[in-house]
This record gives sequence, structure tokens and C-alpha cells, in this order.
Amino acid sequence: MNIDVVLHPAEISTSLLERDLSGVTCVVFDVLRATSSMITGLSHGAREIHPVRTIEEARELGLRKPEALLGGERFGEKIEGFDLGNSPLEYGEKVRGQVLISTTTNGTVALRACEGAGRVLVGALLNLRALVAVLQRDAPEELLVVCAGTFANFALEDGYAAGRLIEGLGGARLSDAARLVWGLTRVYPEAGLALRASDNGRVLLGKGREAEVEWCSQVSCCEVVGEMSSGVIRACA
Amino acid sequence: MNIDVVLHPAEISTSLLERDLSGVTCVVFDVLRATSSMITGLSHGAREIHPVRTIEEARELGLRKPEALLGGERFGEKIEGFDLGNSPLEYGEKVRGQVLISTTTNGTVALRACEGAGRVLVGALLNLRALVAVLQRDAPEELLVVCAGTFANFALEDGYAAGRLIEGLGGARLSDAARLVWGLTRVYPEAGLALRASDNGRVLLGKGREAEVEWCSQVSCCEVVGEMSSGVIRACA
Repeated sequence: MNIDVVLHPAEISTSLLERDLSGVTCVVFDVLRATSSMITGLSHGAREIHPVRTIEEARELGLRKPEALLGGERFGEKIEGFDLGNSPLEYGEKVRGQVLISTTTNGTVALRACEGAGRVLVGALLNLRALVAVLQRDAPEELLVVCAGTFANFALEDGYAAGRLIEGLGGARLSDAARLVWGLTRVYPEAGLALRASDNGRVLLGKGREAEVEWCSQVSCCEVVGEMSSGVIRACA
Repeated sequence: MNIDVVLHPAEISTSLLERDLSGVTCVVFDVLRATSSMITGLSHGAREIHPVRTIEEARELGLRKPEALLGGERFGEKIEGFDLGNSPLEYGEKVRGQVLISTTTNGTVALRACEGAGRVLVGALLNLRALVAVLQRDAPEELLVVCAGTFANFALEDGYAAGRLIEGLGGARLSDAARLVWGLTRVYPEAGLALRASDNGRVLLGKGREAEVEWCSQVSCCEVVGEMSSGVIRACA
């Protein structure tokens, strides 16, 4: 397995879009909080999640799927008129059996940027062990880990999760970017340390959202794996 | 001091160009090999280095400065009709007192992308201690470390040098990207290990250019600091 990592939002909007991903398995991390909320929702029985890039797309899709709940954020806050924000704590029993439409600044954009890939998996620390198991079983030749970032910046928590995934897979051939994020596992032996040190984590702590940071810092507490296919995320077997 | 890091060539060609750098000190690393060759040249008494983006610019400037030596690379090799390639081993006594014009795929592009900055320093492992001393003396409020990369990819050796610089400065406020590269100092206790593990390093070793990798891996063996001002690099006091 060759592992490469997309580090930065500037890559997502430029070189990633030009890359032939047809033979590639992508794992997208937006740990604080989009992909953690998705994994939380799927583990609570959400039926489908439709990640879209813009608020307008979310509203249009909502008109065609009136049963769906609209979720996501702009500037970290719930979008006006939406049913849900972007906190994983909102994606509990309330979403069981539901169809969700989600738009966030970075996470859903990064997911859609990967839609040409052979396989697209939703990454989180919450289901890390399950993710590793799926990838070890599939053993893709090319794995591309995408760090969604925050606005126009690299996000430490995404790089950290990418590093933990690479550590879990072991024995792969690593690109320079993969070696870089793997180094974070040496700096932060526990996920909570990385998430609390990150710019995003500190913003959330400053807003009194400690419970969300703690939730997203849990490693391998759920077994669900999320896969995006034709633009729709579902739990995969 | 706040320290941020530009990790990837995609940032150099997009967000870096939009950034207001007027109050910022930039340090640009292209360790294998552009900035290492520049520091080697300056330490051997090169008078001026003119980094330019394209071969055409280099040739045009060469017509206006017929005394200058043309140097640089494309795809790692010397450019046809140029006097020098991009190996630091070529930048010894031959360049004493000379004016150099240089164009490389990433390093000179990254340097020119910083030209709006308050101060632009040429980074290498070769003069790391001297670089730290200048930055500690100046104590800029904002330091931006730019990793030039290789073609469209992050380059491990640039991130490693950025991490070593951050480690040397100590006690600064680090962005997520700065924390990321700093982690490499935990993975590679010696520069030679990082440079030999990097994609670039392995390509050079495969071409029999081990001496160049070893040269660029030397930490703090020279005391010169290079500064770009109005597009010209000179040794600074």
C-alpha cells in the first residue's frame, strides 16, 4: 500500500481536483467536527448523509427531499433555518432512520472533491479501528488521506488523525506528507492532547464547547464505517 | 513571536500570493538543493544571487548582466547553456566575487512569492544557528516559514528544516502547521536521517549524488545569512 496525504485546503481546491483518483481509496478527515458528526450520526442509525458544498445546494436538495434534516455550519455556527448544527452531540438518537443533508466550510467540500475516487471513506478518530480493519481487508494499492482543514488553514487534528491511521495500518510505503503527519503521533501520545492543542480545539474550548472536543477525541469507540458513493454517505458493511 | 508555516507548493501559488506579508519575516527553505546551494555560494563569497522564476527571465537578466553566471535546474538537471547546475558542490570557490542568476522549479519561485514581505531570509540547515541568531535578535512579531517543496509536492527535508528552526527559536506561539513540522524533530533526531528518508533524498541517492545529500544535511557549519531585498540575495551582517 502506498499512502499519500493531502495536507492543506489549497491542495483540495487545486491539485486534488486535477488528480486521477479512479484507482485510489480516499479517507477524508475533518475531525473537528464534520466527519466526527457524520460517524456519530451513522452510529446512531442515520440512513443517509448527503454532503454538499454550499448552503444553496443543501436547500435545493432539501426541497427535493422534504423528509431530510438539514445540518452543518458556517463560521462554526448552525445555519439559519437548518435543523442541526455541526456538533456531534446533536447527531444522536434524533437522527435514527433519518436522511441528512450536510454542508460545512471544509469537510463536505473535501468529501465532494474526492468523488472521482475508487472508494471514499469518512474518517474520524471515533471509528479508527474499524477504518483500519476495512483498509487492511481491502488493501488498496493507493491510499490518499485527505485533511480537510479549517477555512484556508491546515488543521492539526486532521493531520493527527491521518497520522494515527497510518500508524494503525503499519508497513505501508509513505510519501513525504505521510511521514510528516505520522510524526504527530510521536508528539501527542493521546488524541485529547492533540485536539486540545489545535487551533480549532482552542476556539471550541473558548466557546465552552469542551464536551464536543472530548467527544471527537475518543478513539475507536464505535464500529461503523461511513462510505460515500454517488455523493451519498451510508454505513458500509 | 507567532510562527506559521507554508507547507505545500499549492499554498505558494494561491493563498501566499494573496497574503499581506508587509509586517512578516519569511524564511524560505528548499533544502534539496536550491537554498542550500545559495547559502554555500554566499559562504564562498558570491556577491549577489538573483532568484528568478523562469529560464527566460534568467536568460534575459543574463543579457543585461553579461558578467553573471547562470545557474539552476529543471527536473533536477542543469539547464542547457547555463554555467552551473543546482548542486551545492558547484557553488564553491568558483563563485567567489561573482553575480549569480538562479532559476529552479520550486526554490526560486517560493523566494519570489515572498518578495512583499518585510524581510526575506534564505533558509538552510547549513546556517541554521546563524539564522536562529538573526531571528532572535530581530524578534519579528510574525514569522512565516515557507517550505518550497518539490514540483507539486510537500518535501520532507523542507518541513524538517522548518521544524529544526522552530525548535531552535523556542517559546514562540505556533500555528497548527508549525506544530506539525516541529513534530519531525521527534522522528528524525539527525538531519541526515530526514534527508535520506525524503523522496528527494532517495532520488538523489539513486543518481549517485550522495555527496550532495550529505552536504545539505550538515547543520550550522557556516555562519552566513542570506537575505533577499528587491529581488537580490546578499549575505547580511
